[in-house]
Amino acid sequence: MHLFYTPDIDPSYKQYILSEEESKHAIRVLRLETDSKVQLIDGRGGLYEALIADAHPKRTILNITSVVTGFDKRNHYLHIAVAPTKNIERLEWFLEKATEIGIDEISLLITQRSERKEARVDRLNKIITAAIKQSLKAYHPVLNEPLTLNQLLDKPFDGQKFIAHCEPGEKHELKDVLHLQNRSLILIGPEGDFSPAEIDRALQNGFKAITLGTSRLRTETAALEACFEVNFLNRV
Amino acid sequence: MHLFYTPDIDPSYKQYILSEEESKHAIRVLRLETDSKVQLIDGRGGLYEALIADAHPKRTILNITSVVTGFDKRNHYLHIAVAPTKNIERLEWFLEKATEIGIDEISLLITQRSERKEARVDRLNKIITAAIKQSLKAYHPVLNEPLTLNQLLDKPFDGQKFIAHCEPGEKHELKDVLHLQNRSLILIGPEGDFSPAEIDRALQNGFKAITLGTSRLRTETAALEACFEVNFLNRV
Repeated sequence: MHLFYTPDIDPSYKQYILSEEESKHAIRVLRLETDSKVQLIDGRGGLYEALIADAHPKRTILNITSVVTGFDKRNHYLHIAVAPTKNIERLEWFLEKATEIGIDEISLLITQRSERKEARVDRLNKIITAAIKQSLKAYHPVLNEPLTLNQLLDKPFDGQKFIAHCEPGEKHELKDVLHLQNRSLILIGPEGDFSPAEIDRALQNGFKAITLGTSRLRTETAALEACFEVNFLNRV
Repeated sequence: MHLFYTPDIDPSYKQYILSEEESKHAIRVLRLETDSKVQLIDGRGGLYEALIADAHPKRTILNITSVVTGFDKRNHYLHIAVAPTKNIERLEWFLEKATEIGIDEISLLITQRSERKEARVDRLNKIITAAIKQSLKAYHPVLNEPLTLNQLLDKPFDGQKFIAHCEPGEKHELKDVLHLQNRSLILIGPEGDFSPAEIDRALQNGFKAITLGTSRLRTETAALEACFEVNFLNRV
């Protein structure tokens, strides 16, 4: 059954009209017809089933037949702030895999040693959207515009805060310190790591230093390792 | 300090001559000179330090100054047999990330619903080699030529055997059944999953069915999730 991402729908809708682009895709490409069943996700937990009422190639009309709210709602909130990689494909892989495994929010972190200071968030969001459709998730992770470490540290975060780094110093393992079914924010630095000053500033802002194992991991691998660990520890 | 992968060296060597290709890279590209320090890994646990004795661009001579054997030796043995993906980049991504996280052996599994029946193992091995150099690992994971599920089931494996699948049926979580600091083999099927007959055959051959969480994962993501779980559970 084909799945459409339609963020403008909500559970009050009895009918929905696909956009011109989605209508064309439904009727010309997928060759769906009147009475074909489709699914819709709204990115906020809603999973809808619908039947095609009018197979118009520019404005396909759907009758909503059922809606589930809070579909597969996650039992914890995970925000990863990661320094975007010089090679954008590596960041794209991370976004796709983190979305499959489970994540709520991603920030792109500009640090002292960041190799990349900007990123096309609209393009990166498409990767996430494709991943939620492919892995049947009704929640669309939020991807924030790039911000500096200082800007991130200035924003309040209600939950635990962690920074993963490779400098010497006391570090905890998530399995020992993570509060389960709770909210966490994890900072992942660039290939050259956070600077000692950046680490200090984070620690002074209530961040705990964590280790992600003994292997030397690339930025995007470290970010995914953090994502794995939080999801794994939160498995009921 | 630059690192070379030189599988033909062993701890008895006092001197080593780089290949023509590596020599050219060392002297013409990296601009190393007499007395420059370099590191070598032999793929079997040996990490060597050396000094350039003769900076010849076609046959660079190194004096070995120290050798560590069993460098960062893993405390468990992990073999993942995964159906190669239609899009070969996804498989390449898995090989790189699994090598960073930790893996000993990978087999490419041809199953009933495999989208890809062959793969260039020599090219894929280069991905693994680059990953061990980048993440400073002295052990080179072994990548086997493609083989069918039946051929794999015919080979004895000394250790625990698991199959991850999405069909209904009793499944265990690795955290409940994995013997730590031991040997394990995990089968990961293609996008279309293993067939019921294949699952039966594996179960009859002593494989335990496992789940890798509730998310719908792509083949390469499932393979990496398995890799992550085994490494995480084996963390001392």
